[in-house]
Amino acid sequence: MAASRNGQSPGVFRANRRHFLLGGAIAGIGATTAVAADYALGSGRRPEQDPTPTPLNGSNTVPFYGEHQAGIATDAQAYATVLALDIRAGVDRDGLRRMMLILTDDAARLTQGQSALADAEPELAVAPARLTVTFGFGQRFVEIAQAEAPGWLRPLPSFGVDRLEPAFSDGDLLIQVAADDPLTIAHTARMLLKDARTFTTVRWTQNGFRRAHGSVKAGTTMRNLFGQVDGTSNPVPGTDGFDHVVWNTDGWLAGGTSVVVRRISMDLDKWDRLDRGGKEQSVGRYLSNGAPLTSSSVGEAAEFDEPDFAATSRAGFPVIPEFSHIARARSDHEDERIFRRAYNYDDRPADDAISNSGLLFISFQADVDAQFVPIQDRLDQLDLLNEWTIPIGSAVFAVPPGCLDGGYVGETILG
Amino acid sequence: MAASRNGQSPGVFRANRRHFLLGGAIAGIGATTAVAADYALGSGRRPEQDPTPTPLNGSNTVPFYGEHQAGIATDAQAYATVLALDIRAGVDRDGLRRMMLILTDDAARLTQGQSALADAEPELAVAPARLTVTFGFGQRFVEIAQAEAPGWLRPLPSFGVDRLEPAFSDGDLLIQVAADDPLTIAHTARMLLKDARTFTTVRWTQNGFRRAHGSVKAGTTMRNLFGQVDGTSNPVPGTDGFDHVVWNTDGWLAGGTSVVVRRISMDLDKWDRLDRGGKEQSVGRYLSNGAPLTSSSVGEAAEFDEPDFAATSRAGFPVIPEFSHIARARSDHEDERIFRRAYNYDDRPADDAISNSGLLFISFQADVDAQFVPIQDRLDQLDLLNEWTIPIGSAVFAVPPGCLDGGYVGETILG
Ligand code: HEM
Ligand code: HEM
Repeated sequence: MAASRNGQSPGVFRANRRHFLLGGAIAGIGATTAVAADYALGSGRRPEQDPTPTPLNGSNTVPFYGEHQAGIATDAQAYATVLALDIRAGVDRDGLRRMMLILTDDAARLTQGQSALADAEPELAVAPARLTVTFGFGQRFVEIAQAEAPGWLRPLPSFGVDRLEPAFSDGDLLIQVAADDPLTIAHTARMLLKDARTFTTVRWTQNGFRRAHGSVKAGTTMRNLFGQVDGTSNPVPGTDGFDHVVWNTDGWLAGGTSVVVRRISMDLDKWDRLDRGGKEQSVGRYLSNGAPLTSSSVGEAAEFDEPDFAATSRAGFPVIPEFSHIARARSDHEDERIFRRAYNYDDRPADDAISNSGLLFISFQADVDAQFVPIQDRLDQLDLLNEWTIPIGSAVFAVPPGCLDGGYVGETILG
Repeated sequence: MAASRNGQSPGVFRANRRHFLLGGAIAGIGATTAVAADYALGSGRRPEQDPTPTPLNGSNTVPFYGEHQAGIATDAQAYATVLALDIRAGVDRDGLRRMMLILTDDAARLTQGQSALADAEPELAVAPARLTVTFGFGQRFVEIAQAEAPGWLRPLPSFGVDRLEPAFSDGDLLIQVAADDPLTIAHTARMLLKDARTFTTVRWTQNGFRRAHGSVKAGTTMRNLFGQVDGTSNPVPGTDGFDHVVWNTDGWLAGGTSVVVRRISMDLDKWDRLDRGGKEQSVGRYLSNGAPLTSSSVGEAAEFDEPDFAATSRAGFPVIPEFSHIARARSDHEDERIFRRAYNYDDRPADDAISNSGLLFISFQADVDAQFVPIQDRLDQLDLLNEWTIPIGSAVFAVPPGCLDGGYVGETILG
């Protein structure tokens, strides 16, 4: 093969034809990460080209350090990858501490757009895009850490509707990686898994998505793959109500919470055979705007109207059917509240199917047994939506509080 | 369960407490799609809240009708899902025509943000986000259509580096669905698969991603999961050079092209053991800014500098190694040019692995045998990058020209 290549047709390539003479080229091998990052983001200043640069979504960051871990009260990012790891045999309390020190350091850096220590692809770290990394501890993690586990830190009671697959269930350590950019998530997940590798094996991973950042108006409630507005009746971060629902106040979990991760497959074929009225009655809300059936199907604001469960039609039937998902999911009990932060999943279809889709249901609550289980119990007994949904994965983790600069996630049991 | 629920703690829910009295609620079941769509996008005008609304990415559209199909010269969107379908036994030429009429109609609507006919989730259709749908015909499709197939419309010759899996190879009909929003892609792919179902079965599906729209500066060359700038030396849409490389001019394919889809796994663990200098030499370009090693590793513009393959170091070795990917991929022959439009993939890792990643390599060229095969042949014989990459899927399709309003994709062989 000839060393010189001049055969290109003009105009085909964007390249300019100045041929640089070496010297500097060799010295440049091993260029520093800082320089790399600047250009990798494409944000190197070129005022002549970009007179009024708009801020890039990639540069948005969410603080890592704080009383609570990020990724819970954080406005849900567009993408989440959830990793569940098993602790290798022989790893002891000290090993867990070493691991959490490293993973905390990785997360603290990557979420701020800095590459991790020994990051092999530092150029992929430059666009945090509101990256958050949230850790949760499974029953065995807490056992090895020799800490007292909350009573609810175990697999959920089994429900009649469950068809759980081990490939999506349980685990010793949960890492939720969420951001508005999928490349950022891929790089972050890999960095964390590399650093966790001596201590853990991968049990399962799940990917979820919502609408892309900037696709629809900020603050628009997400839609799931049934087309439903999903997340309307949910505690609002920043309110006392949210704090009460989500944050635990006991011992080492104070400032932490619990997370339930359920993979729930949705039978889109069967759903699509149902007419619009039937779909709306199964949930108790309109597909158009997510408003309760006792309100108006028109207008954005109506989404947040209070459902009137007592209202009846002229024929005497409840307007919001008693078997509808919202009638069943809502409780009279103050305590039975959860904070839902779900994602859609859409995997490769198997066999004759054309879809393999569902909800990566994620909820946070101070106490699983007091808050989540009664709701799931009621839905298990009766919920029209069960006709089209099947839980196929389930896992429960204790989410420790956040940490301050110099500290690490898990210090309240490993410190 | 009580019909009235007043147990909510104030401040927990965003709901307002006006209880609407019914009547309208019942009538509202079956609300029209138009109304639904308005609010699903969250773009209903509410000037008091949003005095200077910024345009939403979700409302961006790419024209569907035209001389060429969209999704080729279109600036690559953030996400692509590629579907390969097999034609069911018994489907004849007339069946193919019926199918392409329906699929064209779906694509024409969905790309413009309108729901497809009999769309079961019209609310998911409202944010096209630069959606494109691109069809390609496999060998068997053209055979059943009783048209003359170009000589290159068959599986690629087998290469020494190949470890092809049937699960990612071949197929009768290709549909590339690309957009800046993953929910849009999920809905579009499903709509198309539903309408294709009587005629086809799903052979394989692959998902790919780049950085999110708006994450980095528009026009920034993508990075792959090796951290490399990938796509620098590529024909530029809108130039004569591009047209010459991409568009076929023969018979029913005039205005069309061919697409090669290769799934290439990338061994990130092995790659990460290589130092920066080694990584850069394997490709012949800097990781920092993608510039050739004969140029500067600093500065955005240097990315497009012309590599100097003749330059040698003081020790007498070529600065861009002869075995590097770019030295091997570039040809002296005018004709051996392709247009690459690749995506990253990052799948669930299996067994002990922590990554299952690679490149969803997609290239368009007027003639596979004349343009693509010689390049792949050279890379097969020698390419340092082969140490870290393995082709595990491969498929070739003829991409028919676009159509005008009233026509359909495929009319040049089915009409
Ligand atoms: C694939 C499965 C599911 C789907 C498609 C789904 C969908 C929905 C939808 C559309 C709503 C109404 C809008 C909203 O307030 O968000 C809703 C409400 C709700 N869902 Fe689900 N859901 C699913 C599973 C679950 C599970 C497993 C739980 C908990 C065990 C749950 C708990 C709730 C709660 C507490 C509400 C709010 C009820 C209220 O106070 O009005 N959902 N869900
Ligand atoms: C995982 C596999 C691959 C990786 C990671 C990869 C990566 C790269 C990179 C980093 C460049 C330099 C920047 C650029 O101009 O885009 C490049 C250039 C190129 N690659 Fe690949 N590539 C892969 C597979 C392939 C394959 C299968 C082909 C075609 C058979 C191919 C053809 C080319 C061509 C034609 C160029 C431009 C060469 C030039 O004119 O400078 N690559 N590739």
